Amino acid sequence: MASVNRIKEAWASGRPAFGFWSAIPDSFAIELVAGLDLDYVCVDGQHGVVDYASMVSMFRTIKFAGAAPLVRVAQNEPWLLMGALDAGALGVIVPMVNSAAEAARAVSACRFPPQGARSYGPIRASSVVGSKDPKALADEVLCIVQIETREGLENVEEIAATPGLDGIYIGPADLALSMGLPLDLGDGKSEHGEAIGRIREACRRNDVAVGLHGTSGASAREYAEQGYSMVNVGVDYLLLTAAVRQEVQEARGGRT
Amino acid sequence: MASVNRIKEAWASGRPAFGFWSAIPDSFAIELVAGLDLDYVCVDGQHGVVDYASMVSMFRTIKFAGAAPLVRVAQNEPWLLMGALDAGALGVIVPMVNSAAEAARAVSACRFPPQGARSYGPIRASSVVGSKDPKALADEVLCIVQIETREGLENVEEIAATPGLDGIYIGPADLALSMGLPLDLGDGKSEHGEAIGRIREACRRNDVAVGLHGTSGASAREYAEQGYSMVNVGVDYLLLTAAVRQEVQEARGGRT
Amino acid sequence: MASVNRIKEAWASGRPAFGFWSAIPDSFAIELVAGLDLDYVCVDGQHGVVDYASMVSMFRTIKFAGAAPLVRVAQNEPWLLMGALDAGALGVIVPMVNSAAEAARAVSACRFPPQGARSYGPIRASSVVGSKDPKALADEVLCIVQIETREGLENVEEIAATPGLDGIYIGPADLALSMGLPLDLGDGKSEHGEAIGRIREACRRNDVAVGLHGTSGASAREYAEQGYSMVNVGVDYLLLTAAVRQEVQEARGGRT
Amino acid sequence: MASVNRIKEAWASGRPAFGFWSAIPDSFAIELVAGLDLDYVCVDGQHGVVDYASMVSMFRTIKFAGAAPLVRVAQNEPWLLMGALDAGALGVIVPMVNSAAEAARAVSACRFPPQGARSYGPIRASSVVGSKDPKALADEVLCIVQIETREGLENVEEIAATPGLDGIYIGPADLALSMGLPLDLGDGKSEHGEAIGRIREACRRNDVAVGLHGTSGASAREYAEQGYSMVNVGVDYLLLTAAVRQEVQEARGGRT
Amino acid sequence: MASVNRIKEAWASGRPAFGFWSAIPDSFAIELVAGLDLDYVCVDGQHGVVDYASMVSMFRTIKFAGAAPLVRVAQNEPWLLMGALDAGALGVIVPMVNSAAEAARAVSACRFPPQGARSYGPIRASSVVGSKDPKALADEVLCIVQIETREGLENVEEIAATPGLDGIYIGPADLALSMGLPLDLGDGKSEHGEAIGRIREACRRNDVAVGLHGTSGASAREYAEQGYSMVNVGVDYLLLTAAVRQEVQEARGGRT
Amino acid sequence: MASVNRIKEAWASGRPAFGFWSAIPDSFAIELVAGLDLDYVCVDGQHGVVDYASMVSMFRTIKFAGAAPLVRVAQNEPWLLMGALDAGALGVIVPMVNSAAEAARAVSACRFPPQGARSYGPIRASSVVGSKDPKALADEVLCIVQIETREGLENVEEIAATPGLDGIYIGPADLALSMGLPLDLGDGKSEHGEAIGRIREACRRNDVAVGLHGTSGASAREYAEQGYSMVNVGVDYLLLTAAVRQEVQEARGGRT
Repeated sequence: MASVNRIKEAWASGRPAFGFWSAIPDSFAIELVAGLDLDYVCVDGQHGVVDYASMVSMFRTIKFAGAAPLVRVAQNEPWLLMGALDAGALGVIVPMVNSAAEAARAVSACRFPPQGARSYGPIRASSVVGSKDPKALADEVLCIVQIETREGLENVEEIAATPGLDGIYIGPADLALSMGLPLDLGDGKSEHGEAIGRIREACRRNDVAVGLHGTSGASAREYAEQGYSMVNVGVDYLLLTAAVRQEVQEARGGRT
Repeated sequence: MASVNRIKEAWASGRPAFGFWSAIPDSFAIELVAGLDLDYVCVDGQHGVVDYASMVSMFRTIKFAGAAPLVRVAQNEPWLLMGALDAGALGVIVPMVNSAAEAARAVSACRFPPQGARSYGPIRASSVVGSKDPKALADEVLCIVQIETREGLENVEEIAATPGLDGIYIGPADLALSMGLPLDLGDGKSEHGEAIGRIREACRRNDVAVGLHGTSGASAREYAEQGYSMVNVGVDYLLLTAAVRQEVQEARGGRT
Repeated sequence: MASVNRIKEAWASGRPAFGFWSAIPDSFAIELVAGLDLDYVCVDGQHGVVDYASMVSMFRTIKFAGAAPLVRVAQNEPWLLMGALDAGALGVIVPMVNSAAEAARAVSACRFPPQGARSYGPIRASSVVGSKDPKALADEVLCIVQIETREGLENVEEIAATPGLDGIYIGPADLALSMGLPLDLGDGKSEHGEAIGRIREACRRNDVAVGLHGTSGASAREYAEQGYSMVNVGVDYLLLTAAVRQEVQEARGGRT
Repeated sequence: MASVNRIKEAWASGRPAFGFWSAIPDSFAIELVAGLDLDYVCVDGQHGVVDYASMVSMFRTIKFAGAAPLVRVAQNEPWLLMGALDAGALGVIVPMVNSAAEAARAVSACRFPPQGARSYGPIRASSVVGSKDPKALADEVLCIVQIETREGLENVEEIAATPGLDGIYIGPADLALSMGLPLDLGDGKSEHGEAIGRIREACRRNDVAVGLHGTSGASAREYAEQGYSMVNVGVDYLLLTAAVRQEVQEARGGRT
Repeated sequence: MASVNRIKEAWASGRPAFGFWSAIPDSFAIELVAGLDLDYVCVDGQHGVVDYASMVSMFRTIKFAGAAPLVRVAQNEPWLLMGALDAGALGVIVPMVNSAAEAARAVSACRFPPQGARSYGPIRASSVVGSKDPKALADEVLCIVQIETREGLENVEEIAATPGLDGIYIGPADLALSMGLPLDLGDGKSEHGEAIGRIREACRRNDVAVGLHGTSGASAREYAEQGYSMVNVGVDYLLLTAAVRQEVQEARGGRT
Repeated sequence: MASVNRIKEAWASGRPAFGFWSAIPDSFAIELVAGLDLDYVCVDGQHGVVDYASMVSMFRTIKFAGAAPLVRVAQNEPWLLMGALDAGALGVIVPMVNSAAEAARAVSACRFPPQGARSYGPIRASSVVGSKDPKALADEVLCIVQIETREGLENVEEIAATPGLDGIYIGPADLALSMGLPLDLGDGKSEHGEAIGRIREACRRNDVAVGLHGTSGASAREYAEQGYSMVNVGVDYLLLTAAVRQEVQEARGGRT
């Protein structure tokens, strides 16, 4: 059966999901973008400057434009996950998950009893999914956790094996910091690259999706070729800033 | 004496002013951009989707980031000009000005008596300018009108000669439509190009600034070299959309 | 060719368009409603308490839910019409139009040159319509004026004959007040009913649509049977208030 | 002494409190409704799409319209309760309370020392209550917890006996899910009905209020007759949607 | 019969109305203030930074706190007056009125036919006034115009005699600018003082109220003693700024 | 090296930092105030009525006006601290910290690994600080905890000794309530005064800053002379309300 979640459709077809990261709390800014052949747009509720009211409007806009609305929640608090899912997010990315217990907590917030402890009240979700049935609602929703600390890395096998978990999204910057490495890591053929590879393999063994956060189409393509199933092609304010910087430079003197 | 208006500083130094066009009603979106060596950022109150509350916040943000905040008002209504100037805009671009009388109406809304009929109440403007004096307040503010119809073109000499007018900003798309030409005009060596040249020359004769709306750094540079004193290097949502489209294409298969 | 405007599709099939009136400035409130087999939802920018930012979000929401977003503008000012159309409204209802000149002013704000004087900048409209072409954009947009004064009534033939006008929407309450009649008019077989009939006939003669504002499904059905082509089935805050009043009464003692 | 909290007045007179549930984040939508002889309006901060800024405005509006503003908080986090009470809510409904310890946590957030650990700063509450005195402020505020899981059901006696607790509000949908029952339960003469009855009796034994969530005036009346002291007569978006659906059906062909 | 408009009650008792000027677009900021024994609070829609959505919320808040909500509109445009009145303002102050025709235009926007041309749709006004009757609605609303230019001064007799006008509010700063005088005028025993006196006398002769804008309680008292019937005791952002400046000075070294 | 944080500059010069407390969620209200020679403005995210979107705008405004933006978070939750710091706050004040473990939790949210567990994503912070380097970012940020309960008082030595803690801010009202004392404490030469002195001395011994919350310039001066390094000169809504009350009294009869 067809899913309303374009990520699930991509995965069902054996394709990786290409996504976009949104930190600008404005629905017009994301509206045209979300229609550009993206599988998902993730609203950054952690490091973006996005309030809840904007988030609700953005979920609506992203879905109607054709992509699956995801949210990276600020913290692994059940109400933050449930509030986003009720409002129409088709998946959550939960930062700083360091253990199987924490992963199970995230899963529980996404699933209704008996699989989880999500409270029932799908105020926008039911029209997004087209059903009021708890199982149907939960089935469309992805629960993805981030491994981005040394502690999480050590527990990666147990985390990846958490029942009901859909995937792991690797946060390379926080992982580097947590490992005592510089933020900018060059070619990845390092301790950092090995850590990332270890997470990827744990996901494969446990048959859950694995994503790696990049900020360009080129890195997204590279990651997709390496087998990552969720890859990010850009971040709104970074792309906008880079584009303006380039235009100003051209205007003021060109590409010498 | 130094001006708080970076456009005026550029002009005083014999340089063109490079600017940016903002249609996304969000202060974070414009904040980083406005600091990228731009002389001004113009909030599009006509064709953008920007409400007044967002506009006020954007004026504040743009100014603090270093650029002069301008606004293209929706229509040549005195209260729209005055409300933007009170809120800290350092200039107005007034669309669809077709006669000297209309240009005078715009000027009047920007200047206090006896030069004009602006009502006194510079609620944010006084701290932006650093003065409560009517003359000082008005001196920092640019009144720029758009010629973008056949009728305006015919009256260009009288418009350019309007006392107190600071400049004319050419709207090429509307001008083309008004002249019965297609929107996309190719090399400009046409009837459309002649019309634009005629406006430019009228501005020079009357010693007022002349701007030409472009949407890229390359066109801005070209226009600057042609003697335009206000040139636009980009439009927020167009640059963002183009950048995302390119990243998606790279991610999904590259520039073959 | 199919239209993106469900009103135009209804009319092309010889059916009346059924609509809804929205005065609550909230996109969630209108989201579920707009999907309930309505041809259009009209955001009341005149007597509602809807600001521009809410309006833009509501246009987006209404369209995606399946209905055509209309707006009743506050006044026959070109920038109010143009700002709504740029933001994705597929039609305007212009209140208090009393003469052919005023009707022509409204039409002009909806059409690009040479048919009108609308300024080009379809920031959301181009994606709603799926085209950047001025003619395609204008063709999807309905320009409807309200006759609701004695003066308008007297000029109904000339108004109805205005080139480019799509229809006349009758405002019965204001028309009654203007005629010196009470607001609540009973069976309509009165001077008021004759006035309404006169407008309806003028529309038929000039082959433009005619709408009559009602506030219930029953009146909408009745008007549709009488040949009105735009009929309103309800107003958000009136329906909500009536429903709550009834539930409270039932709770506190029932319908005795 | 008279209370500013209409629920407390009803209870002091031996009457049940009739209330309304609000999930639309708009003050105009709730303004007229809140004046329709309702004892309280509960803003749904859990399953509604209501942000904090809207909530504050809604508390103000509801109180002035005559009803007591309550909030169902998203989660049993002290700051969520305290932030709503400071902003003028006259009671909290705390979801998913499963033990006496959890109930005590909720109570503690509603009472100042030594009864609880609420931090002092009644920024709007002091004018709502008409006093800055901690005891007076706390006395006007209701602390109500929801029992809506199997675990909560098992601990109902201990929960009901929590010192300082004002009542228990039964969430029938979540309770059903938690018990492995379908959401729609028919006549209530089931395991589900027995569970509800068990909660009701525990409340009576411990002399705390008991509420049961319904969505119609008819169910509210029935529950009131059964002895429930807090009954809900409707939910804003459900009533609005149902009303529009009915009007559209009448308009398009009637109730055949 | 009692009025819901506290200004009208004051005047009916032969007392002047004391008011406050609000330019901060926030309902909490005005909420406590509006309850401090003020007859009215005027939201500054001209020189404040107040958008329409904030204005509606402020009207609600001010009225419930006990004062009459007024608005100084941005310009003498019918829809700006009508939109504020529909939303619950109990009076308008219209700036820059220079002739009897302009005054009549303002009056017309405040009165329903046959006295005026206000369109009927009192969405919030009907509950504020407690009536849906056009006459009752209009009777509670004050139409006040500002004379603040030399031209207005010359036409003061005709303006004051405009049928349906409730009063004239003198804008001393703009009047000074228009007369070529400095903004800060000292003791008022000047050409400026004579102009003000001339307006005051014209109001008395025509039996309409006369207000004079001041920014302190002391000036308000003085003006009240001189017979002004509307006097302003302060402006929000000026009082706040002055208070903070004083506290900082005390903190950093005291009043030496 | 110079700091972007004016509090740190004051302390580096051996001067106390003078600050202001902001509970009105509006950037215009704080804009002029923040430029009045204040070292910091603290947005009250606990007892104010400030939502996250307003907070972000206020941080921007305060910083550009010259003061350091701080936030008192609602609760010691990592994501609340991290979200404010990412958005440009240059310090957090964390309420109700009762133990060294709780203090360490707050510190950890302010520092990146290995000193803490703050997640990396300084979306606005990097431009505020002028660096993307984790250490530089963390160095500009103050982590201050509040001791305001009897339990916190008992643990004051351990709290003050928390590695990475910058200071302790004393909340006198909550401390009094927690000690069973009245809110209004007179001359401070009481059990309450001794408790405050005990906290102050613990801070000195541990070489961390100590602040005491007052609401006037006079108290701020007194506290500064007593050696407090963070002193508050006023609270926005209290100063505004007091100022209006005084003006109304003067207007209505003067200071008799």
